[in-house]
Amino acid sequence: MTLKGGCIVAQSGGPTPVINNSLYGVIEDAWNRKEITGLYGALYGVTGILQEQLIDLRREDLATLKGLRYTPGAALGSCRHRLKAEEYPRLLEIFKKLNIRYFFYIGGNDSMDTVDKVRRLAREEGYEMRVVGIPKTIDNDLPATDHCPGYGSAAKYIAGVVRETGLDLKGMLSTNRVTILEAMGRNTGWLAAAAVLAKTSPEDPPHLVYLPERPFETEKFLSDVREVYREFGFAYVVVSEGLKDPTGNYIVAEETQDAFGHRQLGNGLAAYLKKLVESYLPVKARYIVPSTLQRSSMLYASGTDVEEAYLVGKEAVRLACRGLSGIMVTLEREKGEEYICRVGYVDVAQVANKEKGVPLEWIAPGNNFLAKEFIEYARPLIQGEVKVPFAGGLPHYVNLERYVPAVERIREK
Amino acid sequence: MTLKGGCIVAQSGGPTPVINNSLYGVIEDAWNRKEITGLYGALYGVTGILQEQLIDLRREDLATLKGLRYTPGAALGSCRHRLKAEEYPRLLEIFKKLNIRYFFYIGGNDSMDTVDKVRRLAREEGYEMRVVGIPKTIDNDLPATDHCPGYGSAAKYIAGVVRETGLDLKGMLSTNRVTILEAMGRNTGWLAAAAVLAKTSPEDPPHLVYLPERPFETEKFLSDVREVYREFGFAYVVVSEGLKDPTGNYIVAEETQDAFGHRQLGNGLAAYLKKLVESYLPVKARYIVPSTLQRSSMLYASGTDVEEAYLVGKEAVRLACRGLSGIMVTLEREKGEEYICRVGYVDVAQVANKEKGVPLEWIAPGNNFLAKEFIEYARPLIQGEVKVPFAGGLPHYVNLERYVPAVERIREK
Repeated sequence: MTLKGGCIVAQSGGPTPVINNSLYGVIEDAWNRKEITGLYGALYGVTGILQEQLIDLRREDLATLKGLRYTPGAALGSCRHRLKAEEYPRLLEIFKKLNIRYFFYIGGNDSMDTVDKVRRLAREEGYEMRVVGIPKTIDNDLPATDHCPGYGSAAKYIAGVVRETGLDLKGMLSTNRVTILEAMGRNTGWLAAAAVLAKTSPEDPPHLVYLPERPFETEKFLSDVREVYREFGFAYVVVSEGLKDPTGNYIVAEETQDAFGHRQLGNGLAAYLKKLVESYLPVKARYIVPSTLQRSSMLYASGTDVEEAYLVGKEAVRLACRGLSGIMVTLEREKGEEYICRVGYVDVAQVANKEKGVPLEWIAPGNNFLAKEFIEYARPLIQGEVKVPFAGGLPHYVNLERYVPAVERIREK
Repeated sequence: MTLKGGCIVAQSGGPTPVINNSLYGVIEDAWNRKEITGLYGALYGVTGILQEQLIDLRREDLATLKGLRYTPGAALGSCRHRLKAEEYPRLLEIFKKLNIRYFFYIGGNDSMDTVDKVRRLAREEGYEMRVVGIPKTIDNDLPATDHCPGYGSAAKYIAGVVRETGLDLKGMLSTNRVTILEAMGRNTGWLAAAAVLAKTSPEDPPHLVYLPERPFETEKFLSDVREVYREFGFAYVVVSEGLKDPTGNYIVAEETQDAFGHRQLGNGLAAYLKKLVESYLPVKARYIVPSTLQRSSMLYASGTDVEEAYLVGKEAVRLACRGLSGIMVTLEREKGEEYICRVGYVDVAQVANKEKGVPLEWIAPGNNFLAKEFIEYARPLIQGEVKVPFAGGLPHYVNLERYVPAVERIREK
């Protein structure tokens, strides 16, 4: 049944190189649909809706919109905001006031919780609307989908820079013998694990990869590094930022928490391990924390990932217009040698606030590398390169003009 | 006058994305020259010569050698080793024993000192040989050359990632409002300065850039950041790793020194400034230290830089075969609107152990940005992109086979 009204799309959580591809997919599919009267972007996620900071996407220049396909960062602005109980009714009030009937939220597990709650409240209040979650996270930790848009590109980046900085390490043995790279990923090790895709021979970096799915034992780590160093004369180690000791405490974490109550990671683990190695082995070590570089490198974006991020955006609109609500679009991989992946969907309640880690059987015995099952899983996700347009020696990225829609314009539709 | 004998080429100091282009230039030009009887690479710089760790470059596969043009890292291995007084005679002894008459050293200011001393000792001892330095440093701190091969690519990387992580910052204002990126460069600010090439409007990152050519004043820095934050709601700051306070002490540096007696930098300045900002402004800040990523990113290599690095390698052989010795090849830019750069040379004594900083008049008033003279200087150096071959989703880089030449083979030539 056709539901006529306005549409809001918003972005949430950490940006990825391809999050704007999902935005573009939504815009492209919604563009000519008569039932979607207004096509709006909310600035900075749900906080932008609460503050009625909307932009009129149909007024944007077409060339700019197409530029979203190779522009990293969250073009609408993103947020980490867990809605308080009293904010949900306010959100619905705004949807009603502006006659918003479609809401697309591009985000991770916290955002899917928002999608779930908005869907429930709208149903309770008898306000007909279609709420659809679009998966996005470099962490790849969403359940119910084979993988998450954003992961393939960040995985390709991690593997690529391990190869490049591995060459740097091998060429400078007189200065450093050990490099420790710290990947993002919070409580799951998907991103750190991707480093193994760089390896082509036993001597090749990375030599050791540690994931938070297994407890991190310092003594074992040091003896692992020593063994590799003795065999090859150098060692390249990749660690996931969320490593925990056998009692379940982070090895290193800041005291402060983010808006979702998560401890801040990425500030100190690799530095700590570097010092540990130097105190144990007669070598200098170096650490690398790629920080937001790993979620914003368009030059390392995966062609496969770019395409899939775009497709899940399009599919979200298609499914909503078919009448579905309270779902998250998924990627479903077919069994078999060849990589074939289709879009699907699940009830968003199956995803909200849940985390999917690397299966323990994909971690190699010794807990310091990955088994071939992981490599077979991850390899197809980093295939394909993106031609980024350059101007004046630098990538040419776009910014939305962010035209403010007149409130009258919204209401009259 | 034709001088017949063997040739050794070696790499020294920190690798760059294009250091292997200079190596390839040497190999290509020396390949068919009859006066160059043996064409050898020394592993790990001068230390490889002292240990007679040589490889026979003419036995390498041609496809592998051509792959050097897009492979980062030091393919021969590099070193940071300041020769002790007693090691110079030993070096010359090895040259004599193996009848080495040509020595090409690809490196920075410390390496040019080695070139100078080897040249002098050979002359004193009446051993005829041609010793030529080939400039290489991402720091761009060599005098007597317009710029240094390696700088253009690292500069392009810094500007590119400031643009990308700047988009990330702008998209995530609910989490962080300030990003501080720490660039390499030791005592000169060339690399940090390159960040300004990313800027296209006043609101655009970077907003503030601090170089070691000017004393760093903490109070001034904090009020600069506050001013930018008040105007735009966020601030992107780039600092050079070697910032010093008004009394001439590094703001942050490790206690240890490297083999050249330099203090180790790059471990703490940005982290320190992040905490400082957070204690002063009501915002969260983030820091990024690209570490060896900035000297190994082939995807951000400058086409101009790749070509020039190759040309200085070729020119070194050409000049040596014309009879010159004790020189460093240079890049000479013609005056005028259009960028035209030719190769030249200077006596290596003009370069050895000297540093060239960013001219003070190129630093903007306020000491927190660059003037247009710098932009006009640097812009041409980052032009052009490199097509890196990918295989299986990752860059395909090469490793030399490193064929060991039989000592008999060397001597009989």
